[in-house]
Amino acid sequence: MTETVVLKLGGSVITDKSGECAIDHARLREIAAHLAARGAAALVLVHGAGSCGHPEARRYRIGDGLTGENVPGIYETHAAVSRLNAAVVGSLRDAGVEAIGIHPLDLGLAEGGRLVSFETRHIVEMTEHGIVPVLHGDVVMDRLQGSCIVSGDQLVTRLAVELSSRRVGLATDVPGVLQNGSVVPRIDRENVATLDIGGSGKTDVTGGMRGKIMELLELADAGIESHIFHVSKIDRFLDDTGHGGTTIGRDAP
Amino acid sequence: MTETVVLKLGGSVITDKSGECAIDHARLREIAAHLAARGAAALVLVHGAGSCGHPEARRYRIGDGLTGENVPGIYETHAAVSRLNAAVVGSLRDAGVEAIGIHPLDLGLAEGGRLVSFETRHIVEMTEHGIVPVLHGDVVMDRLQGSCIVSGDQLVTRLAVELSSRRVGLATDVPGVLQNGSVVPRIDRENVATLDIGGSGKTDVTGGMRGKIMELLELADAGIESHIFHVSKIDRFLDDTGHGGTTIGRDAP
Repeated sequence: MTETVVLKLGGSVITDKSGECAIDHARLREIAAHLAARGAAALVLVHGAGSCGHPEARRYRIGDGLTGENVPGIYETHAAVSRLNAAVVGSLRDAGVEAIGIHPLDLGLAEGGRLVSFETRHIVEMTEHGIVPVLHGDVVMDRLQGSCIVSGDQLVTRLAVELSSRRVGLATDVPGVLQNGSVVPRIDRENVATLDIGGSGKTDVTGGMRGKIMELLELADAGIESHIFHVSKIDRFLDDTGHGGTTIGRDAP
Repeated sequence: MTETVVLKLGGSVITDKSGECAIDHARLREIAAHLAARGAAALVLVHGAGSCGHPEARRYRIGDGLTGENVPGIYETHAAVSRLNAAVVGSLRDAGVEAIGIHPLDLGLAEGGRLVSFETRHIVEMTEHGIVPVLHGDVVMDRLQGSCIVSGDQLVTRLAVELSSRRVGLATDVPGVLQNGSVVPRIDRENVATLDIGGSGKTDVTGGMRGKIMELLELADAGIESHIFHVSKIDRFLDDTGHGGTTIGRDAP
């Protein structure tokens, strides 16, 4: 199996959170041009929902489970984030990247908000044929509560483990995890409790920065380091030439 | 688990095969109105690709596997049939049916043209919340040949078994399986060899009428009878009041 890079584009990087599904097409074109110029390495992309899906998920309280009345929220939330996915895939294809969108609602099964079934062998097959699968945070059916939100961060964790990825990156609109305005260079289970990390600027239905770090510490437990950096540093992350952000890893030996 | 009906809409029923992705919106509205008026029973819909996907699948020879050059055909074929799926889901939702599209490429894994992995528990979860999942014939990644076409008929078979369905219907643009212009009322493994069944009017990448019957005989082997009838008889099939078409079942005792 080829070494696969899992790269997440934060929802707030590719949408304007103040609007409703306000897609930042210029940013998408820029990212697509960078990825197209590189080619080669097997890549799986994941993106957050940003302002495409979060408003719907909140309005229908779809992450809290199904009550009967809020069932239409599954479609509405899924349709909104699928629009963003189509824009991401479209930008990549326009730039010459052989991208294909994969919707987690179509394949995932969760219990209590965590994925318990998520096929990835077809995703591996795609990367082996030069295809870049593009997944996204999504509403997913949940056997305990009917439905839940599976964040892009949970997907990144799941994919990195299943694909035995060694390079996991999260491109955000901040330079890394911040404490008192400075980037925290490294986070592990030993120092995480001592850090004063707020949520991300605007709270979202997937738990903000703290939720993200907790996901990534689980990944670190599995021996996979991950990197949080500013979106302008994607090339540096891919080249491993210093992204200036935060690395989430296992406790220093 | 609720008793689930699996209903397939033939590709030639909802598209005009002479055009390229010529969707028959009037027919879709008509079918949607019938299904909306019934409500209640758990229902899973599957549709064929018709003129949305077959031309692309043929052009790229995507069903024969991946050669390298034809990789873009995965996206093109999938995008075409996904457009049809969006139209089917849209018609149903406009009529008040809580439909959601599910794309087999997103979840299926095949080997030599047959599905070896296809999660259905989230589909069951959907039906239990009154959602009508709408699947479709699609290109699917294949571990032996890179890619293959999974027909709507193969999906019907798979879903019927996994969902323990007792009512499986295939709505077509003919009154049933025809021999010398007359409907064959019943087909089983005993009489199938004696029948002179041509392919469907126009050959397609999924094997025509003979391929369909072979799929459904496998279903019959698993103890599940299926029914092929004219699309105007959907109500009669659902009510079990005589659709005038063909029943595919086990050998008469």
